[in-house]
Amino acid sequence: MTDSTPVAAGASGTPEGVLAALYATLVERRGADPAQSYVASLYAKGPDAILKKIGEEAAETIIAAKDVPGGGEAHRVLLARELADLWFHTLVLMAAYDLPLAAVTDELARRTGRSGLAEKAARSAS
Amino acid sequence: MTDSTPVAAGASGTPEGVLAALYATLVERRGADPAQSYVASLYAKGPDAILKKIGEEAAETIIAAKDVPGGGEAHRVLLARELADLWFHTLVLMAAYDLPLAAVTDELARRTGRSGLAEKAARSAS
Amino acid sequence: MTDSTPVAAGASGTPEGVLAALYATLVERRGADPAQSYVASLYAKGPDAILKKIGEEAAETIIAAKDVPGGGEAHRVLLARELADLWFHTLVLMAAYDLPLAAVTDELARRTGRSGLAEKAARSAS
Amino acid sequence: MTDSTPVAAGASGTPEGVLAALYATLVERRGADPAQSYVASLYAKGPDAILKKIGEEAAETIIAAKDVPGGGEAHRVLLARELADLWFHTLVLMAAYDLPLAAVTDELARRTGRSGLAEKAARSAS
Repeated sequence: MTDSTPVAAGASGTPEGVLAALYATLVERRGADPAQSYVASLYAKGPDAILKKIGEEAAETIIAAKDVPGGGEAHRVLLARELADLWFHTLVLMAAYDLPLAAVTDELARRTGRSGLAEKAARSAS
Repeated sequence: MTDSTPVAAGASGTPEGVLAALYATLVERRGADPAQSYVASLYAKGPDAILKKIGEEAAETIIAAKDVPGGGEAHRVLLARELADLWFHTLVLMAAYDLPLAAVTDELARRTGRSGLAEKAARSAS
Repeated sequence: MTDSTPVAAGASGTPEGVLAALYATLVERRGADPAQSYVASLYAKGPDAILKKIGEEAAETIIAAKDVPGGGEAHRVLLARELADLWFHTLVLMAAYDLPLAAVTDELARRTGRSGLAEKAARSAS
Repeated sequence: MTDSTPVAAGASGTPEGVLAALYATLVERRGADPAQSYVASLYAKGPDAILKKIGEEAAETIIAAKDVPGGGEAHRVLLARELADLWFHTLVLMAAYDLPLAAVTDELARRTGRSGLAEKAARSAS
């Protein structure tokens, strides 16, 4: 599979399926040619390159978010793009470290079911 | 709905449904009592408080990821927790700004279907 | 020396002397009581706690800087405070790792003497 | 003055003078040709470009710092370089916003003279 292989229609038919389909694609690209695939080029550079992108995209998300109040629809679109960049690179990190998507979503499901303040207390205690 | 309301079983039955269910919960909590809900307390502090958390959780993700190589399963669990914290606060930001989950997942779906290097070129050009 | 020991007048007589005096103080506080000194409490928590603060203060610097254009003098004062927080925690990191102030200022002096674009090329090549 | 103008010998004769000399240089480069000067090219792109660099360099500082324990002298040198990059771009931000070096060093001097925990309490209250 190359980077241009479209995501399976079934998987991406719902917003919720996009992350799973993207994650599967990112795992497959670990074997791709770094000259052909942006993601494979990131894997080839090593984990630090992925982590730098996460820091960079988090900063760009913050910058874009600051432009949203009073900024019009265009700034909301830019924020969505930066958030997509940030999520994308966290998924690349997970694929690089063989961390399944469920490792993160199970954690999110667990804390969703609790009181937020109880959750925060639990996190502080750990 | 308080923070302790469990996520509907159907929504969280698959890993992919967790984000949609969590996002819906976060939107509902915009009207919750800040003294009862961690998320409502974040909304009450304003967007900057959410953005600070995104910066903080991105840093913690990077720190946790650096401990994974040679670090054993416990460090992979810690990384998953930090990633969950980071995603959680990006979802809070989206809920605060009324940015639907699909705004980000559509963006991800769009770039998944393209060659990664073509995608990167497209982003650089924008 | 406790945290409340004033910086020697000679050292802080010029803006340039402040960093050297502060760094010396931070090195001395490595032996202070964590219950009495914020810095000693950071050292006691270990390097990750310092790194989290650097990530957090970088995010707060970005947030504060976005409020400066059209924001009046108060926002410039807030930006200066966030920059001071960021520098402060980088100095704590240097003290924790026994990295002398000159290790960073020598590096800055070296690149100041070169053409910026030549410098950037040199960094990219490394 | 172009980027290759050496810093005045007197100013850079001490480690403490380096920041003042560098800041003065950065202020002068605001009028330089973006094609000739890395710093002028940053100014030309606008404040967001500078803020992205601050986020990026903070992430690279964290990554480099994580490699220091057990990493040998080479990793300490790399950390010093990343810290220099981070300080450099904070100085560029200050020059872009006409924030004098003393605005930050005065703030640092003020908090150095106080007890660290008192200082932290004061910051939390603000």
